[in-house]
Parts: sequence; C-alpha cells; structure tokens
Amino acid sequence: MSVELAASDVLAEGLAAIQADVDSAFDAFMPVPDDTRARLVEAMRYASIGGGKRVRPLLVAATAQMFGVDRDAAVRAGCAVEAIHVYSLIHDDLPCMDDDDLRHGKATLHKQFDEATAVLAGDSLHALAFEILSDESISGDPFTRAELIATLARASGMSGMAGGQMMDMAAEHSNYDLQAITRLQQLKTGALLAASVEMGAILGHVSPEGRAHLRAYARDIGLAFQIADDLLDHDGDEAKAGKALRKDDEQGKQTFVTLMGADGARNQANALVEQANGHLANYGEEATLLRALARFIVERDR
Amino acid sequence: MSVELAASDVLAEGLAAIQADVDSAFDAFMPVPDDTRARLVEAMRYASIGGGKRVRPLLVAATAQMFGVDRDAAVRAGCAVEAIHVYSLIHDDLPCMDDDDLRHGKATLHKQFDEATAVLAGDSLHALAFEILSDESISGDPFTRAELIATLARASGMSGMAGGQMMDMAAEHSNYDLQAITRLQQLKTGALLAASVEMGAILGHVSPEGRAHLRAYARDIGLAFQIADDLLDHDGDEAKAGKALRKDDEQGKQTFVTLMGADGARNQANALVEQANGHLANYGEEATLLRALARFIVERDR
Repeated sequence: MSVELAASDVLAEGLAAIQADVDSAFDAFMPVPDDTRARLVEAMRYASIGGGKRVRPLLVAATAQMFGVDRDAAVRAGCAVEAIHVYSLIHDDLPCMDDDDLRHGKATLHKQFDEATAVLAGDSLHALAFEILSDESISGDPFTRAELIATLARASGMSGMAGGQMMDMAAEHSNYDLQAITRLQQLKTGALLAASVEMGAILGHVSPEGRAHLRAYARDIGLAFQIADDLLDHDGDEAKAGKALRKDDEQGKQTFVTLMGADGARNQANALVEQANGHLANYGEEATLLRALARFIVERDR
Repeated sequence: MSVELAASDVLAEGLAAIQADVDSAFDAFMPVPDDTRARLVEAMRYASIGGGKRVRPLLVAATAQMFGVDRDAAVRAGCAVEAIHVYSLIHDDLPCMDDDDLRHGKATLHKQFDEATAVLAGDSLHALAFEILSDESISGDPFTRAELIATLARASGMSGMAGGQMMDMAAEHSNYDLQAITRLQQLKTGALLAASVEMGAILGHVSPEGRAHLRAYARDIGLAFQIADDLLDHDGDEAKAGKALRKDDEQGKQTFVTLMGADGARNQANALVEQANGHLANYGEEATLLRALARFIVERDR
C-alpha cells in the first residue's frame, strides 16, 4: 500500500514538474518577435504552451534521470519531441485531415487563427524541434546531438509517425486486421513514444544492452497507450478528453476495440503494462517513475 | 570571349550533373514501401523527382567542390536542402496558402493527389531532410553532421524560411517598404540559399574567414534571386516558368518591381551579382561555377 501510494505521488509530482518545465522552456524558445511574424509565433505558443499531458517529455526526463542526466538537457530534449507531437496534432486537426474543432478543451489552431497559419505554425514547430536538438546547450558532445537528431528524425518521418498517419488515412478504405492495426499504431504513436525513452537513454550514455531493455519497455507502453486511446475514444468523457470522441466509430474505422472488444482491449493494455515493467526488472527505485508512467498511460481519463 | 563560353559550359554541365545526381539520390532515399504508405511515398516522389532547377543543391555542390569534398556527401547535403525547399513549395501551393494549380509545368501535389496527402508528404520531406543529414554516410564526423543540421534547422524555421513566409502572408495587409521587403525576402528565400553555400563550406571545413566571404556572396545572390523572381512574375512567360505568374500584381502585393520599377530592379539585381562575385576575389578557377551560378540566377527565364 505504501509503495502504491509512493508511486502515485512520484507520478503526480513528475507530471506537475514536467508540465511546468516544458511550458517555461517553450516560453523561452518562442519569444514573440517585434515584426509581422508575431502572429505566427503567437499561434505556435497557443498550440504548444499549456494543455498537454506531456507524456513524451516525461518519458525523456524519467529515463534520463535514472542515469544522472542534467535536468535542463532532458527538458530540452523533451521539448523537441513535444514540438514534433504538437505539430502533428495541428496538421492532423486541419479540415483536410481529421477536421477537428477542439483540442485540449479549446479551439483547434486553425479555428482560433486560420488554416494557413496552422500549416505554417506546424511547420515551424517541426523545424524548432531540430533547432533545439542542434543547439550546444543540450549537450557539449556533438555525437550525442547527432544521435538525438537521428533518433527523432527517424521517429517522425515516413518510417515513423508520418508513415503511420498515412496508413491511418488509408484505414477508411482498407479492412485492416489486428496485425495491420498494430503495425500502423507502432508507427503512428509508438515510434515517437519509443524515441522519447531512447533519447533519455542517449543523454544518459546507456549501454547497448541497457538500451535494448528500455526500447522493449517503450514498445510495450507505446502499444498500451494506443489501446487506451481507442478505449477512451470508445467510452471516454468528451469534457475530460477536451476533444471530440467516437470519431473512429462514425468513420467505421477498425480499432483495437472493434477488433478485440472493450474488455479484450482493456485486458491486453494491462498485460502490456505488466510486460513493459518486466523489462525494467534490472532497475530498482530509480525506475519508479517509469513504472508509474506505464500504469498512468492505460489508466488516464484524457 | 573564351572565358565567357567556358563559364557557360561549366554552368550547363554543373546544372545537368546536379539534376541527374539529385534525382537519382531522391530515388534511392524514397523507395516505395509494400504497404498502405505507398501513396504517401509516391506523392513525395511526384513532388521531388524531376522538374526543379536544383539551384540549392548546385550551390552546395559548387561550394563543396572548391574544397575537395566528396561528391556523394555534397549531393546528400544538397538533397537535404532541396527536400526542405520542395516541402515548402508543396505547403505554399495548398488552397489555404497560395492556392496554385501548376508547379514545374505539372499539376501541384494537392491537385494530383489530395490536400491531406500534400500536407503529409510535405511533412515527410521535412523530416527526410534531417534524416539525410543525421546519417553517417554524409560525414563520419558527428560535429560536421551536427553543424549541417543546425544550419539547415535555423534556415528553415521561424527565424528563416517559415518566418519569411509568415511575413509574406501578412504582406497583403501591410504596406511594406523596400527595407521590409528586403528583410522578408532575406528570410523567405535568402536563408535557404545562404544555408546551401554554408553547408558546402561546412563539409569543406572552411576557415571562419573563408566562410564570411562565402556568406557575403550567398547573401547577395539570395537577394538577386528574389529580385529576379519578382521580375519573372512581372514579365516572364508562364509556359517557361511552368507556374502561374502575375499573382503579386493581382493581390496588390509590394515587390521589388513595384517598389523600384522593372528597370531599377534589373539594375539592382545585376549590381548584386557583381557584388556577390566580388566576395569570391580570393578564389581562382575553382570558383568559376559559383560565379556562373550568380549570373544564371538573374538571367534565368524560369
């Protein structure tokens, strides 16, 4: 009981701390210029400061802290992953994509500003991610910077997130089975979550063997995350989620819930969390936050 | 006379060689996968293979060859810059941006495919640029890779190309003077052209003093390039340009031509080319291609 309580305290503290740190770092990364670019930067700030759960930055920071990495470096790397995540949400919400009006409980960027600004703000956040990682402040070692960048570029490109989104777009016309949905989600959501853990490990100069365990953890929680998302879409509370739900059902898309049933999906998500935490068996108390994060990922209500 | 002829031969050969090399490298960078991502990759290939003048890759390669850089590395770096350029054209052409139907004499990407695919293909090319630069095949030296990435990220982000595009979007509502237009274009077009020269110099491990001269050259041709673009938009041939012209006039936007007159703009472009080539005074025959490229930039008809 006391262990459970401690874990939930660690999680609550970890989330609050990373949310504050990411907001403050984004604020510093995006000063509003005194020219006609101001509107672009205001849009970038509107979409990126406040609101997000910051699961990806917390994965970077929780992994990095296990290996004694400087907090500031971990927050910067976390902001780079989050900038990619936010840009992908902005573009996903566009009328030509998912056409969503609500995100994090407020108007989506193209609703609040306009479509052209949303396209450009997304593009600028995409570039900002690589600007952050190429700055010496993240690590004096160029090899570390180059590895961080390579990891994020692979995870966000056509063999990662963007490729998964394209498979997802084709999902309305394709009758995906469980294997195909799993592959799609490994790219669309899993790649960036795995990259977050990997980037924490890169900052921590973790051995190849240690990285393999962490990657296995990341792969399992990535899948659990998406199953939980499908469950939320199926029976979540729109007010808490802060976005439109039940869209997959409306579009007749196959999801983990349609393919496995709600109970089957919930069991599978829980089994994946157990399996993920099994990969952390070599670690002691220093992995408490990663273990708690794995549970949070399937138990969250938004 | 023989020197003039030689220079135009060098340019024609340089353009033909880089066009072939970039097409072949893009072909290798974007194999079509055997799954539902195929359509995305086909779209990326449609937009990036064939058609472009490849001015940016030629700037990288022409600078790099002055310092004995391996051709393959220069072509890879050139492809990274070109991938950024192509993604920006795809997003610029979208209905919510410039709403263009024609590019390089064929249908724009969202016309040939659809808007969602165009957004995603642009995003994927953006990520590809950084994947290319973070691969060890471009340089075994991580410091060089990190410098290349930092240069490209700065040039394409909000303090470079994306910022310039935002200023350009605001141009319809703002009454920009010559100074403001110059600043806008330095970001929108100049930053990426300057980055091309800079990346060739990074690959060539050029001294800080040498880089300052090359940067000055790049700044001048960047401005000359945009003045030439405004002149083409004003009195060019749509069939040769392969895209819609006279759009600035229709939208009542200020350009170098509206602010300086066509003759004034032409004189200014030529003066900038002279000034650009003056910055190459320390170099001999090895800079013939860069000098010829500066002239080409203002004399081209597309």
